[in-house]
Amino acid sequence: MTGTLYGLGVGPGDPELLTLKAVRLIQESAVIAYPAPDTGDSLARAIAAPHIPDGRVEIVIRTPMIAGQFPANDVYDHYAIEIAEHLRAGRDVAVLCEGDPFLYGSFMYVFSRLSEEFPTEVIPGVSSLMACAAAAGAPLVSRNQILSVVPATLDEVILRDRIANSDAVAVMKVGRHLEKVRRVLTGLNLQDNAHYVEYASMEDEKVLTVADLNGAMAPYFSMILVRHPERDADA
Amino acid sequence: MTGTLYGLGVGPGDPELLTLKAVRLIQESAVIAYPAPDTGDSLARAIAAPHIPDGRVEIVIRTPMIAGQFPANDVYDHYAIEIAEHLRAGRDVAVLCEGDPFLYGSFMYVFSRLSEEFPTEVIPGVSSLMACAAAAGAPLVSRNQILSVVPATLDEVILRDRIANSDAVAVMKVGRHLEKVRRVLTGLNLQDNAHYVEYASMEDEKVLTVADLNGAMAPYFSMILVRHPERDADA
Repeated sequence: MTGTLYGLGVGPGDPELLTLKAVRLIQESAVIAYPAPDTGDSLARAIAAPHIPDGRVEIVIRTPMIAGQFPANDVYDHYAIEIAEHLRAGRDVAVLCEGDPFLYGSFMYVFSRLSEEFPTEVIPGVSSLMACAAAAGAPLVSRNQILSVVPATLDEVILRDRIANSDAVAVMKVGRHLEKVRRVLTGLNLQDNAHYVEYASMEDEKVLTVADLNGAMAPYFSMILVRHPERDADA
Repeated sequence: MTGTLYGLGVGPGDPELLTLKAVRLIQESAVIAYPAPDTGDSLARAIAAPHIPDGRVEIVIRTPMIAGQFPANDVYDHYAIEIAEHLRAGRDVAVLCEGDPFLYGSFMYVFSRLSEEFPTEVIPGVSSLMACAAAAGAPLVSRNQILSVVPATLDEVILRDRIANSDAVAVMKVGRHLEKVRRVLTGLNLQDNAHYVEYASMEDEKVLTVADLNGAMAPYFSMILVRHPERDADA
């Protein structure tokens, strides 16, 4: 009997936004794996920490992050081999993932390497998308509206086109693309209808309109939510 | 001191997909309100049931649903008055909402009527969007991809344009629009790359490709997830 591979969404940062199912599987799985920066602590582990029993096998997936780049393939190849050994030996492995595993989640890299060989189950989590909207106190979409979720890394012309042609837009991964996104929003006269949110649901949570925003850089955990005021549904 | 209005996301259906925060606020709030069909049980209450203490004040928000229409304004006006009375008397009111309150959530109707007068907090929940992707075992988006979330109620030409021009699409509220969505997907030769999911995370969960799907109607709790295979990221 091989073990089961769990992709566990642990939510956006607030440890209370873990689901009951994630808590149970963290407690029951023989092996816990989680991403971490090259040096420093893992946010995913910090969220799950109160529920990890003493003495569990832990795999720290160290991913050197180069700004604007994705982890090199061989990093995940290496950890996939280590995880596969546990699964073959019959041990369940819970891979913790910030937010939701299938919405820009880091679990994707493990999933693509192991889900064909091993029984795999994804436990959905609260995404930063929902946490940012809750923090901003502004609905994302209602009734018959269209929502576009776009990475800030897109070309400026494409970004402008998307924002102009959706009822609501969530711009993810703002980081060093803040100036470009602000230029697009100001050009469309949407700076007062766009909420900038960083560290949603965490202690350092901050919410501003784009009009009130200073500085040229945003942290990795930031997002901009835009709604066209004239298209707001009569809720 | 007025009470606080909580918009509580209770997740897509599996009671284990409640967050720890939702559980705590269900236990602590003096008044629990939730939507229910004209006759019959409330799904939101069923999800939360194990955590509702005996003797709580409960407000059943009965919304007569006419296919393809939204609840009449005066229905929510009526319940908003009832909820406001509790808040004015200093009692916290937790309004339960399937999925996430701000992603097509029913909480919107309460929020728009009361959030300016009373302290309001939204607790994000696991959306059916994430639950459907998890059920289908298929990532929504990764890396630099664009996701469009569109209601199936859209005009066929707009729907086709959106699906053709996004890396990934979630078509919500399929219901009686199934034939139209299937026609669009077949026209774009995407029927094998589209997952139909109904009752995600619930006992009756069902996953099929659109190519394998029969019948002209889908239940309200259904969604179609589409990914363009040639645009799949090398995750």
